Amino acid sequence: MNQTENTLKIIPLGGLHEIGKNTCVFEYNDEIILLDAGLAFPTDGMHGVNVVLPDMTYLRENRHKIRGMIVTHGHEDHIGGIAFHLKQFDIPVIYGPRLAMALLQDKLEEAGVANRTKLHKVQPREMVRISPSFLVEYIRNTHSIADSFSVAIHTPIGVVLHTGDFKIDHTPVDGEKFDLQRLAEHGEKGVLCLISDSTNSEVPGFTPSERSVFPNLDRVFAQASGRLIVTTFASSVHRVNMILELAKKQGRVVSVIGRSMLNVIAHARTLGYIKCDDDLFVPLNMLNKIPDENVVILTTGSQGEPMAALTRIANQEHRQVKIRQGDTVVFSANPIPGNTIAVVNTIDKLMMLGAKVVYGRDKGIHVSGHGAQEDQKLMIALTRPKFFLPVHGEHRMLVKHSETAQSMGIPAENMVIINNGDVVGLTTDSISIVGKVPSGIELVDSSHAGMVHERVLKERQQLAEDGIITVAAAIGWDGEWVAKPEIHLRGVVTVVEKAKLEQIIIQSMEALIDDRWVNYSPAGNSSVEVDWIRLRSDVEAELRRLLRRELQTNPTVVFLLQTPLEPPVTTTTRRSRPTAKVAS
Amino acid sequence: MNQTENTLKIIPLGGLHEIGKNTCVFEYNDEIILLDAGLAFPTDGMHGVNVVLPDMTYLRENRHKIRGMIVTHGHEDHIGGIAFHLKQFDIPVIYGPRLAMALLQDKLEEAGVANRTKLHKVQPREMVRISPSFLVEYIRNTHSIADSFSVAIHTPIGVVLHTGDFKIDHTPVDGEKFDLQRLAEHGEKGVLCLISDSTNSEVPGFTPSERSVFPNLDRVFAQASGRLIVTTFASSVHRVNMILELAKKQGRVVSVIGRSMLNVIAHARTLGYIKCDDDLFVPLNMLNKIPDENVVILTTGSQGEPMAALTRIANQEHRQVKIRQGDTVVFSANPIPGNTIAVVNTIDKLMMLGAKVVYGRDKGIHVSGHGAQEDQKLMIALTRPKFFLPVHGEHRMLVKHSETAQSMGIPAENMVIINNGDVVGLTTDSISIVGKVPSGIELVDSSHAGMVHERVLKERQQLAEDGIITVAAAIGWDGEWVAKPEIHLRGVVTVVEKAKLEQIIIQSMEALIDDRWVNYSPAGNSSVEVDWIRLRSDVEAELRRLLRRELQTNPTVVFLLQTPLEPPVTTTTRRSRPTAKVAS
Repeated sequence: MNQTENTLKIIPLGGLHEIGKNTCVFEYNDEIILLDAGLAFPTDGMHGVNVVLPDMTYLRENRHKIRGMIVTHGHEDHIGGIAFHLKQFDIPVIYGPRLAMALLQDKLEEAGVANRTKLHKVQPREMVRISPSFLVEYIRNTHSIADSFSVAIHTPIGVVLHTGDFKIDHTPVDGEKFDLQRLAEHGEKGVLCLISDSTNSEVPGFTPSERSVFPNLDRVFAQASGRLIVTTFASSVHRVNMILELAKKQGRVVSVIGRSMLNVIAHARTLGYIKCDDDLFVPLNMLNKIPDENVVILTTGSQGEPMAALTRIANQEHRQVKIRQGDTVVFSANPIPGNTIAVVNTIDKLMMLGAKVVYGRDKGIHVSGHGAQEDQKLMIALTRPKFFLPVHGEHRMLVKHSETAQSMGIPAENMVIINNGDVVGLTTDSISIVGKVPSGIELVDSSHAGMVHERVLKERQQLAEDGIITVAAAIGWDGEWVAKPEIHLRGVVTVVEKAKLEQIIIQSMEALIDDRWVNYSPAGNSSVEVDWIRLRSDVEAELRRLLRRELQTNPTVVFLLQTPLEPPVTTTTRRSRPTAKVAS
Repeated sequence: MNQTENTLKIIPLGGLHEIGKNTCVFEYNDEIILLDAGLAFPTDGMHGVNVVLPDMTYLRENRHKIRGMIVTHGHEDHIGGIAFHLKQFDIPVIYGPRLAMALLQDKLEEAGVANRTKLHKVQPREMVRISPSFLVEYIRNTHSIADSFSVAIHTPIGVVLHTGDFKIDHTPVDGEKFDLQRLAEHGEKGVLCLISDSTNSEVPGFTPSERSVFPNLDRVFAQASGRLIVTTFASSVHRVNMILELAKKQGRVVSVIGRSMLNVIAHARTLGYIKCDDDLFVPLNMLNKIPDENVVILTTGSQGEPMAALTRIANQEHRQVKIRQGDTVVFSANPIPGNTIAVVNTIDKLMMLGAKVVYGRDKGIHVSGHGAQEDQKLMIALTRPKFFLPVHGEHRMLVKHSETAQSMGIPAENMVIINNGDVVGLTTDSISIVGKVPSGIELVDSSHAGMVHERVLKERQQLAEDGIITVAAAIGWDGEWVAKPEIHLRGVVTVVEKAKLEQIIIQSMEALIDDRWVNYSPAGNSSVEVDWIRLRSDVEAELRRLLRRELQTNPTVVFLLQTPLEPPVTTTTRRSRPTAKVAS
């Protein structure tokens, strides 16, 4: 693509046509800055995948241009990718809010890449000069995690305002209000382009304040007579704060389970986002000394994650916590689409064990952290942008958000609906898609040992669907078995008995091999050259045909042909392998 | 369990703690009747599974007692299991509504089991005598499929009323009203037990009439300027009828795609549930001769099913239908939990191809076929049962339904919350769980070649997660390789190069084998007995340890040890395999 002098390039590598792995590149002249670098979680069919990252080819190839990164807040889908990327290229400096930087520091240390960058903690309204073309201003916003920001990026062609994740909460739990004044001031001076969060663009109205949850949770807490087991997103610092406050109010102590919950609470307390006394907390193993009505267990697992504490409790696999009659379990979170089944299964299991379970949208014990249509309109009204770029959402959400913007008078030609990898060219008087960079996904294996390539994923899918049949055979230079062929089935459904199957397979192989040996060695001359590779692939193809016909299924078929160690020098002497060791 | 003289046993084998595979056994003395026998669809992790059925052990073992089956309506989760079960045991006679029997006849013929039973079509208010203890009365109800019934089962201890699937629709599309009079008459005379549909027990209010969809669909149809592509459940006969009616009203012809849609429409037309002229329908290949504004394409795929027509259209894989600018796609169905992601992905893809997509609960273009809390209350109010048994729902739905019943004055001790396989003992003055029969699941493989056993499913899960490494080796009586060992990786993530891996594996095997041969043959006597089985398992265990350490992953490891064909008679002569054929 052409590098135009007065064009700012905006290249989202993740977060478009999806919820997750938000990663955005801003490029002007030869300077690149990054805004967030998140991860996504695997979808169905991504077998054995732990983490999904954007394709980083563009940044690997342009690593020399990278001047720094801006982080807007500490959610996994905004900072979870950074440790992985730092293994591939350096980022000279990362700016971000205190909580996000504390969480990031842990991640970088755990991955052993803390030395590949410098972390810089920002204050509200702080201006950070990242490079000659990029001056970034941090504007406090309100979201489900504490210490969250929108940013105004001052560039040579004008101000680009990126909302980050936001809702407009006039009564935030921590009292840290949305800095609407700065937004309005930018609106007054002129915003060239607004890049805005589209998550809830299909939802009419305003998203309720986080504080609206308080009286409803309060009621649930007051009605519980036994233990309270409460789950929410670990990163929802405000919610966690509320739960702790309610525990104190009701004379209950709190035990926290789940690594991420413990981690976030520790950092939030250090930084003052959660204010409570040490004696509110009690270790899990002390709980049996405390009456049930004085106990809150705060746990991960609000999404039915298989390994989370609450899921293990529901499966009766948790060593220390067993559900008993009188327990009240509170889901202070809604299931993210895709997790619904896992969540309702967890709810059912908890109920069957005797717990009362409080869940569901009608209870008012959860609100979204993302603004709905009216929040989105207010953002546009305050900033009065010339151009509009909806991000952070699936395709139909981006479309809906653009319709909202058009309803407020921004012309359709002043906005683009983009996908990951699209290069948006922004000038003082135009916005358009000017190119495309690689935009696939990179999959981190559950083992964290490496990346899962497309081919491996396809192999796993095939293995999962129909299993695998492996046939191992060793053939001598004379075309005879030198050992008994072995057949192995794994994950295969068959109505044919194994012995019968072996017989069919061996007969078929023998017929094919005999046929081949006639061709190789028409005069019975055993010193002829044997094309083992072709033989192997021909037998494999034949076995595949045979097995699909016999079994009526479609398993992966592998033929392991073991070739003799060396061609025979004489036809009568047996060769032993070169490295042979004789047992003594 | 004890067979008590005056106890009716009610044994649900499917449909409890789930939505799907509804199958219920009624047993009195030595007479068994079945009520419905449905299938369920596989959940995540059921790799390569096509259909889920209840464990039929109890019926296999008591096949001699089976006197007949009652079918309430033609949905897959009520009739989809019958063809599979008839392969295992006979059912002398199956009673059911005309549409259900027509659909069932097709299934039985396709499975080649039509001769294992007799199908009998019932009329509203028909009484069928199945056996001395069971006289069954068909009571017309309203549901999303045409020709649906509740049943009053007259038994020696009283009337048991099973609602089947129902909502209370006072303005049904086909004019066939719920026979509330018969319900009320039974309520007046006395219903011993009500067995009632719990699907929507968490939903307050009444479920709207199917007819309420009409004006909303009408508006959507009127606003479309190009082609209309409409999807709904194939079995929603009333909805399909409405769509056809609206097509006619708007001067559009209809092309139908999807096997199940074609099948249901054919039967519903034959039986008079859908009334329209032949000339409304146009084959797909004729559509290009007709202006876009005169076309409706009615298709399967409302749940984002991978192989359904609409999904293939969205993936640009449908040979005949390509989305183009101006198309309007209408989802006249809500996603069933678990299908949400697949559905929204389909919507996004259709939008990206240029279609306008109409979807979502707020559009009023879909209503449920199951009654909400007020429908459920009306059912209880009309029938005034002594005992209450909530069925057809997940655990929390059953609990909620029982709370609704209690709110109407039925004592808690007059109802039980049950799971599949529970044996409910009903007498004239008690209801309780009196036993348990096998209640697992049976999984039909995608290939339909056989059943997927628990072990196979576990193997598939492991293969999917981490792949498989197979090592094949052939060792002679002297402990030496007789052929080159082969190593095969499938679906495995590794950062180690294959050559390096081979080297490590072979070295490790050689060390272990050498060690063993010392033990087997201390004096170098090669005619010693070798414990090949133990050797195989020891090498496999060693390889598993080694590979997990080296690769940092956890693949399935299989060692195929090929043993020499016969023990050596002399130590110098080479043996050839017994069935050896010499190439000539």
